[in-house]
Amino acid sequence: MIVILKSNPEQKQLDNLISWLKGMNIDIHFTEGSTKTIMGLIGDTASVDIDLIQALDIVEDVKRVQEPYKNANRKFHPDDTVIEIAPGVKIGGGNFQVIAGPCSVESEEQICTVAESVKASGAGLYRGGAFKPRTSPYAFQGMRNEGIRLLSEAKARTGLPIVTEVMDISHLPLFENVDVIQVGARNMQNFELLKELGKLDKPILLKRGLSSTLQELLMSAEYIMAGGNEKVILCERGIRTFETAMRNTLDLASVPLLKEKTHLPVIVDPSHATGNASLVKPMAMAATAAGADGLMIEVHNNPAKALCDGPQSLTPEAFDDVMKAVNAIRPVAFNGR
Amino acid sequence: MIVILKSNPEQKQLDNLISWLKGMNIDIHFTEGSTKTIMGLIGDTASVDIDLIQALDIVEDVKRVQEPYKNANRKFHPDDTVIEIAPGVKIGGGNFQVIAGPCSVESEEQICTVAESVKASGAGLYRGGAFKPRTSPYAFQGMRNEGIRLLSEAKARTGLPIVTEVMDISHLPLFENVDVIQVGARNMQNFELLKELGKLDKPILLKRGLSSTLQELLMSAEYIMAGGNEKVILCERGIRTFETAMRNTLDLASVPLLKEKTHLPVIVDPSHATGNASLVKPMAMAATAAGADGLMIEVHNNPAKALCDGPQSLTPEAFDDVMKAVNAIRPVAFNGR
Amino acid sequence: MIVILKSNPEQKQLDNLISWLKGMNIDIHFTEGSTKTIMGLIGDTASVDIDLIQALDIVEDVKRVQEPYKNANRKFHPDDTVIEIAPGVKIGGGNFQVIAGPCSVESEEQICTVAESVKASGAGLYRGGAFKPRTSPYAFQGMRNEGIRLLSEAKARTGLPIVTEVMDISHLPLFENVDVIQVGARNMQNFELLKELGKLDKPILLKRGLSSTLQELLMSAEYIMAGGNEKVILCERGIRTFETAMRNTLDLASVPLLKEKTHLPVIVDPSHATGNASLVKPMAMAATAAGADGLMIEVHNNPAKALCDGPQSLTPEAFDDVMKAVNAIRPVAFNGR
Amino acid sequence: MIVILKSNPEQKQLDNLISWLKGMNIDIHFTEGSTKTIMGLIGDTASVDIDLIQALDIVEDVKRVQEPYKNANRKFHPDDTVIEIAPGVKIGGGNFQVIAGPCSVESEEQICTVAESVKASGAGLYRGGAFKPRTSPYAFQGMRNEGIRLLSEAKARTGLPIVTEVMDISHLPLFENVDVIQVGARNMQNFELLKELGKLDKPILLKRGLSSTLQELLMSAEYIMAGGNEKVILCERGIRTFETAMRNTLDLASVPLLKEKTHLPVIVDPSHATGNASLVKPMAMAATAAGADGLMIEVHNNPAKALCDGPQSLTPEAFDDVMKAVNAIRPVAFNGR
Repeated sequence: MIVILKSNPEQKQLDNLISWLKGMNIDIHFTEGSTKTIMGLIGDTASVDIDLIQALDIVEDVKRVQEPYKNANRKFHPDDTVIEIAPGVKIGGGNFQVIAGPCSVESEEQICTVAESVKASGAGLYRGGAFKPRTSPYAFQGMRNEGIRLLSEAKARTGLPIVTEVMDISHLPLFENVDVIQVGARNMQNFELLKELGKLDKPILLKRGLSSTLQELLMSAEYIMAGGNEKVILCERGIRTFETAMRNTLDLASVPLLKEKTHLPVIVDPSHATGNASLVKPMAMAATAAGADGLMIEVHNNPAKALCDGPQSLTPEAFDDVMKAVNAIRPVAFNGR
Repeated sequence: MIVILKSNPEQKQLDNLISWLKGMNIDIHFTEGSTKTIMGLIGDTASVDIDLIQALDIVEDVKRVQEPYKNANRKFHPDDTVIEIAPGVKIGGGNFQVIAGPCSVESEEQICTVAESVKASGAGLYRGGAFKPRTSPYAFQGMRNEGIRLLSEAKARTGLPIVTEVMDISHLPLFENVDVIQVGARNMQNFELLKELGKLDKPILLKRGLSSTLQELLMSAEYIMAGGNEKVILCERGIRTFETAMRNTLDLASVPLLKEKTHLPVIVDPSHATGNASLVKPMAMAATAAGADGLMIEVHNNPAKALCDGPQSLTPEAFDDVMKAVNAIRPVAFNGR
Repeated sequence: MIVILKSNPEQKQLDNLISWLKGMNIDIHFTEGSTKTIMGLIGDTASVDIDLIQALDIVEDVKRVQEPYKNANRKFHPDDTVIEIAPGVKIGGGNFQVIAGPCSVESEEQICTVAESVKASGAGLYRGGAFKPRTSPYAFQGMRNEGIRLLSEAKARTGLPIVTEVMDISHLPLFENVDVIQVGARNMQNFELLKELGKLDKPILLKRGLSSTLQELLMSAEYIMAGGNEKVILCERGIRTFETAMRNTLDLASVPLLKEKTHLPVIVDPSHATGNASLVKPMAMAATAAGADGLMIEVHNNPAKALCDGPQSLTPEAFDDVMKAVNAIRPVAFNGR
Repeated sequence: MIVILKSNPEQKQLDNLISWLKGMNIDIHFTEGSTKTIMGLIGDTASVDIDLIQALDIVEDVKRVQEPYKNANRKFHPDDTVIEIAPGVKIGGGNFQVIAGPCSVESEEQICTVAESVKASGAGLYRGGAFKPRTSPYAFQGMRNEGIRLLSEAKARTGLPIVTEVMDISHLPLFENVDVIQVGARNMQNFELLKELGKLDKPILLKRGLSSTLQELLMSAEYIMAGGNEKVILCERGIRTFETAMRNTLDLASVPLLKEKTHLPVIVDPSHATGNASLVKPMAMAATAAGADGLMIEVHNNPAKALCDGPQSLTPEAFDDVMKAVNAIRPVAFNGR
């Protein structure tokens, strides 16, 4: 960590800072510039709160040299994490998984029909929203408990492990039969929820917040891992920018960058990111080529009737076509690394 | 609501859409353009889910003509809402309040000293963080229960109503003696929490999310109000942009714009927005001139020792100076309207 | 075009608007809603200035139903544009080109060595900066005239057509021997320059501005095309967001989206977008999988000595590796469409 | 400047770097951390190109400790710059100016009528667009030469100095009688134009780019000043964000921040920033309270007929009302400092 002092720092504050740092076993090297003094802090600076130092009147700027996350850091865990979601269903370290299913659980017929169809096309996990975060209090809020029951039914019929989103700590008891608990973009920094998920022994699918930096995403993963749960799957799902032609801007460079920084699996959700069915296939192919460990894709069953699926949903036939294209890209992408 | 159809829409889907809309007592006017057909929907379209229509294959675009919020909408409540936080402590409709206090509750001495000092300078409410949302799991998470107890102590000594942030539904029982419950930027779209706050009879201070549009802020207020709690105070606290010279970009034009759209009080937090003590005073003055109903300002007590206050905190003396400047601007701003 | 009127519009202004529209042979259909009136404009609305209507006091909102660009619009030119840059060097409509070379022209040896090397690896065009847009007036501004002379030398030796950036209309006479004139991100809306380029019969490589929407990019292409020059190649090069871990956010979904909207070739520059050599290969592969018509990649010759190449530059060996990976992805991507 | 080296840097590259730095009379202090080495560079580092060092394989990160601008830097020129635009018309250092006028010059009658009206309300300078940067090639591009002639006519009649925008170097000869040359947001990084303006002895009004950082704005001012023209007025006019309820996000905290960093005058354009006439008055008041040295406000003459003014334009009566409010705020804002 580097601390840049203002010109002519007050000596008393400087002495306070130095003794506080030494109390944490941090060594300090001074570099006197023409107008400013730079302090280089040496030792285990991950425990030093950067905001506390930044707050001092005598400090102009502080810069971390080491990352503030440990459990998620590839430097300390060079090998890819491989998460076994269910017997034989692995993700990470060369294991690729496609999670598919409808935006919302609507009925037993719907949820089971789509499950069978995506399984036949090669999806490895099944998704469906039971608790739905909706911008408007007047919009459909999901089937909730009953939605989770119907997902379990689809799991029983197809054998596919299920993924669904949690919205509040108090709902967690309902998630016992859920194989992967999803944390949505709006909850990426719901720190109390993250701490609670850290106590579980179950994979967590952590979506990047709408305006979160990659470091913040990794710090949220660190919250879960610090509690003891190391089964975290990261998901890029688009960020908010000024562009209005698409719902969000899918940040595919985050895939190789995250994989440099962390050993955790990284997947991509092209459906929510673009909000546009015609962009899902090229973005699924691109994400695969970029080295993603998996994809999350929305599939609905009956476009003619469906008034409840988002404009980003594919029909089962279109999803099958995406799977073929992704499967063709995969070996090339893998060899290309 | 306007629905723009694609060229040559499939007749069966179009018939489905028309009969679904008529089932909701919506009238439809058609305008046939040279290449496209436009449907104008007439009736109570607030209950029509825009996403459902957008999802249809035959639909190119949908545009709302009316706002999707009712309780928060000034059109239906032309008069400013005035919230009485405690006997004689009102906000809105010409009543201006300054909420001041430290970022975090640290000790009884700290919290009571600052309270007396900001009261003497004219603050109307007292703030302090007991539960702290921190990006890192390794950073100080607040004094939690004990923090709320100490705030109550400061309230007992000074008579100032207290404002503090809630981070999870399960903590709400601790907030009985809290006068205003704050929802932080990261929880602005924690919809389950908002619903729970809608059941209370207590003012809620709702901060704008880091990348939330003003309409999303109003929809989150609507979540609380739809539950029956109409005492919502909106707070502009800066949005995330590409600019790195300040922590966030304070969007002061949101103040007059929100006041056009809603009858709820709107306050501004220049401390968190800028993250820079030297910008707090000019931004407090500017926010007042822009017509804000109040301010939220961070004040700490001992800058020489303080390792726990953010770089945005003012000393009590600096806060006193800000209050004088704000009080001078207020009558001019008020007359200027 | 749809015009939403405010409640109770002043009759005189409304009559003015109606007669002005009728004077342009626009038909108007009225839809009376419960609180608002909607006007549907029918006819050739591309010539109607949306800002003029938006400005009227009686108008609440205006929405275009048709795109404001014609020459660049795929609706009116369904087939992909194929541009023949030099005999046998085509781009678009299934023709894929990689443009490679150093950030800046530095010396004859450098520029010729790199040219031979990238040609051997399969690049179809050669790039190098002669005029350099630099944020600081104290930074190296490029070799300018002499830089263009050296690029011509490299072209003579290798036969590769050359691409270089223009910064001002007054420099255009120097570009006679340049095969593709590049308009940089900062000049995407230098409208006087665009008009001048519209008078040439030479391919223009138009880079997306740092914070430009895709529609603005297409409107800038329209500026060039409206002048008669239809040889425009669009280039996605990353947009500015809040993320600081990379230089910019590469928006790969823009590739399939642009190709829906326009018939022009679309290429991707992963070097400038990410500013990070280790991300160039995965992003080159992803861009190819997303359907790009080409790539623009920075290559330098001597990393140990080079003090003048950006951190995003590849060595010739690394570039050769990227070409192999891209060539493996291409047939799969093409079949996948 | 601080250079953070990667672990185990190649010795030959490190030796190259050290000897290159010593050749520029830079002293180097080394701090060896547990995993990384930090180099502190001491001396005149403003001439060191940060990108060159960043590019080296052995370098992980570089951080400037000193600002890269000199002429614009308040550290080297502590006193406010006061620019005398015309005899008795000063800006900066406590001198406040309002620049008002229509978006576009349309006719002699329009331009002279508005000029007389804004002068009567107290505007100190007159503005009007002769060359108009328009997103669409089909939109009105301004009256150009004739527009400048009409502005001169208005200047002759009222005595108000005139401000108008330049779009290309080749038009500069037409600007002889113009008192302040405006560089629009889209040209803020048109470096060749900035260099040319640096050769003039005439005030330049430099608008912040749509997605420019404040440091980039200062570097563009530095381009002009490095050429010898120190009469630069900076203008905040809103930045592009995800918010769609307003045209841009007016960043008022930039005013006090810029005034900390530079001695140049800083003005605010609330008309273009918000694109909404009802927000101009509160934002003009807020900008004044924030310490701006002036304002730029759009005023048009005949709202009932005007099809050519933007929705952000005020009538002369509304402008008069804004001037009264601003004049009331000014002494309070000034005393508040």
